[in-house]
Amino acid sequence: MDGTTHPAGTAAAFERPAPDAVGEVVAGLRRRFGERASINAGVREQHGHGEGLADAALPDVVVYPHTDEEVAAVVRLCNAARVPVIAFGIGTSLEGHVAALYGGVCLDLSQMNRVLEVNADDLDCRVQAGVTREQLNAELKGTGLFFPIDPGANATIGGMTATRASGTNAVRYGTMRENVLGLTVVTAAGRIVRTGGRARKSSAGYDLTRLFVGQEGTLGIVTEIQLRLYGVPEAISAAVGQFDDLRSAVQTVIVAMQHGIPVARIELLDALQMKACIAYSKLDGFDAKPTLFFEFHGTQAGVKEQSSLMEAIAADHGGHPFRFATAAEDRSRLWKARHNAWYAALALRPGAMGFSTDACVPISRLADCVLETHEDVERTGLVCPIVGHVGDGNFHLLVLFDPADADERARAEALAQRVSLRAIRMGGTCTGEHGVGVHKLDALVAEHGDEAVDLMRTIKQALDPNGILNPGKTVPARRRE
Amino acid sequence: MDGTTHPAGTAAAFERPAPDAVGEVVAGLRRRFGERASINAGVREQHGHGEGLADAALPDVVVYPHTDEEVAAVVRLCNAARVPVIAFGIGTSLEGHVAALYGGVCLDLSQMNRVLEVNADDLDCRVQAGVTREQLNAELKGTGLFFPIDPGANATIGGMTATRASGTNAVRYGTMRENVLGLTVVTAAGRIVRTGGRARKSSAGYDLTRLFVGQEGTLGIVTEIQLRLYGVPEAISAAVGQFDDLRSAVQTVIVAMQHGIPVARIELLDALQMKACIAYSKLDGFDAKPTLFFEFHGTQAGVKEQSSLMEAIAADHGGHPFRFATAAEDRSRLWKARHNAWYAALALRPGAMGFSTDACVPISRLADCVLETHEDVERTGLVCPIVGHVGDGNFHLLVLFDPADADERARAEALAQRVSLRAIRMGGTCTGEHGVGVHKLDALVAEHGDEAVDLMRTIKQALDPNGILNPGKTVPARRRE
Repeated sequence: MDGTTHPAGTAAAFERPAPDAVGEVVAGLRRRFGERASINAGVREQHGHGEGLADAALPDVVVYPHTDEEVAAVVRLCNAARVPVIAFGIGTSLEGHVAALYGGVCLDLSQMNRVLEVNADDLDCRVQAGVTREQLNAELKGTGLFFPIDPGANATIGGMTATRASGTNAVRYGTMRENVLGLTVVTAAGRIVRTGGRARKSSAGYDLTRLFVGQEGTLGIVTEIQLRLYGVPEAISAAVGQFDDLRSAVQTVIVAMQHGIPVARIELLDALQMKACIAYSKLDGFDAKPTLFFEFHGTQAGVKEQSSLMEAIAADHGGHPFRFATAAEDRSRLWKARHNAWYAALALRPGAMGFSTDACVPISRLADCVLETHEDVERTGLVCPIVGHVGDGNFHLLVLFDPADADERARAEALAQRVSLRAIRMGGTCTGEHGVGVHKLDALVAEHGDEAVDLMRTIKQALDPNGILNPGKTVPARRRE
Repeated sequence: MDGTTHPAGTAAAFERPAPDAVGEVVAGLRRRFGERASINAGVREQHGHGEGLADAALPDVVVYPHTDEEVAAVVRLCNAARVPVIAFGIGTSLEGHVAALYGGVCLDLSQMNRVLEVNADDLDCRVQAGVTREQLNAELKGTGLFFPIDPGANATIGGMTATRASGTNAVRYGTMRENVLGLTVVTAAGRIVRTGGRARKSSAGYDLTRLFVGQEGTLGIVTEIQLRLYGVPEAISAAVGQFDDLRSAVQTVIVAMQHGIPVARIELLDALQMKACIAYSKLDGFDAKPTLFFEFHGTQAGVKEQSSLMEAIAADHGGHPFRFATAAEDRSRLWKARHNAWYAALALRPGAMGFSTDACVPISRLADCVLETHEDVERTGLVCPIVGHVGDGNFHLLVLFDPADADERARAEALAQRVSLRAIRMGGTCTGEHGVGVHKLDALVAEHGDEAVDLMRTIKQALDPNGILNPGKTVPARRRE
């Protein structure tokens, strides 16, 4: 063992396994899985990173299991040999979650992609971890049901579960925390455990389901997910409201949330992001001003009532009259522009790289947090548009930087760090929906304190005593003095 | 040590501590807490049971802490001496949660009853564990906010957190699982840990908050709770619908839930329970027929729309026209009758004792589960009215029996056991809201299986290695072969 630790020095007590141990595991997997165990360099490279900034760290082998039992067999082999095992969905995570920091086995779950059952009468379904959210909604067509959680990327349900994802609809429908009813999980010992159930509520024992939602593959490998579904609303209406200044837009959100308007989506784009979207998505007729995108779900009368209330609140804060989109194609054009905000932002500065912050604060602090962050950005001179799921108090700064300019990158990372700490100082969280991965280990401690992080460490130690499950992620392995 | 195990043989590997150890702890507590550490027999008796059927099991001493630090000091003392420590709120639990099966220290948290902060703008608050839900709502008067979770009893927020309670409003507002944002918990080692936060969502690390919601004092002592609050609705309307048969009433509920009507309360009373309530609460003008009590929250127009939709669905199922109550005093009279259902039921058979089952099933199985249970009751010849939070698929059989008749009691307990297993067989849970305590340890295993229960045991062992926290509850200590 060479005792290598992750270069960032952030995380793990895990020691890289001896080459012999890894070699034996790889050979064993190739015997068992044949072509479904790949050591191809390109395949390994593709599995060594998500969409975030983390440097790629390659697994030694990528395995494509088809069943829970196959997953369990791989994990048992790895556990016996003390070789890391890292679950992989479709590679859209943002915080370095899938980087194989200590090598090992990447479990690519994308071929476990069956929708196992849809219980239309109970508004629930059971899917394998590799099903993507777009696939699920495509398979639900015609049932009158949909799955609302929408993080933007076409992530797998397994990955969304592992990161406790949310996105644009969470203000109304909740996050993965609220929408996972039960799980099948493979433990570090290679046991197959079913958690939760199909009842809407239960007081039967410890909430194992919630323990595995957001654990980022460090406590177990999620292979199946029982999900809540929702009836497609009778009426859906989208609206866009523009404001002369950022504070007015944010105050509109705060008042709307305090009034309890059951808006389905309420998304902020600052003037810079709006400028980028107008250019990128050809959004004619809009100005490069702070903007809110809304969506209302309900009955015909309910949607009309919600949108009138919302427009009145916006007008109270100096907002311009809303532009409405009720036809499906108009709504779809608007939301496509919102979903393409990231690419629009990148187009502001060709050649730049970017990453996203993920602050989430109590709604009363949203204006302070957004405006202080906006001023902070201005002082840095960086190009950083703001978008956000502001109904939850969650917003992203899209931080662009020149990858050839080490100083600029350092300033970009320092800015991101300040955003995390600002959110924490305001009673919020460093990550509303992206997760901890490798990048937010320090912020996790700043947010929860040593005692809570010690407790997380105790749980990690109990459930994964050899530390093979996604080592170096989510919880720092040692208390730093 | 005498190695006594609980008479029911259900639970614990815990061994009763040596009398010397207990004596020393009691003496130490009396020195530190003076009159706030009571060994009075009456006080101990009062703290040895909740409102359920469990035989009283007396703690050796009852301590009334005032601060988190005092709680931590008591737990540290107990942990060092291997003496049990049992958290106690107001004694309304139903499954024997507070029985001191192995003696030890009862931590009565009722004097930790301050509402620490109310953040009206963020719709949240922080309370000490001993605050009751009625006290909280009284203190919220004038803020325009309320705390909706209503299990009937005036339980403490700490107790409701520990049992993952819910009640009549859960169909709209969720359970304690959804409404606890964060906690302060004293661990078995006597450390004070803060979990969660005030942001509405977070992906920062393991969900410690949800792990402590529903742990029944077996993993830690909850001392403070950060709660979601809600704006008092602009309009509230109650309605009562009566049906000629039970199936029609239940089918009305199923269709309403599948349509996604955001009803705030939807409560079933079967003909027998309705007969009892008419007699007990002088509900004039109603028949002893299967009945649904509804409450609708929203805007004036929204409430009207919801109630019209609901009445139309009821009419489709042969329901009689609704009787509405919009004036606060009329609503209050109706809900008081609902809350007194338990006393009304007991009055059906003077001298009888009773207990409540707690099945909760996926909504599509609700009719099957209720009707099979109803037939089961008829076969037993017992008197058992049915009430239920049927919007969640949750219903209670109030099982009455003659305490002097051992055979009848055995039949009553066998009936309750069948109800649990029926719910589990239908994809549901043996306990929707009451918890496991000592009575549902076997049902827990039947529901979740050995692998999941082993995982719960692993967590218990990691967080409470000496097993001092409420021993004999929630999770069976050993796998039974």
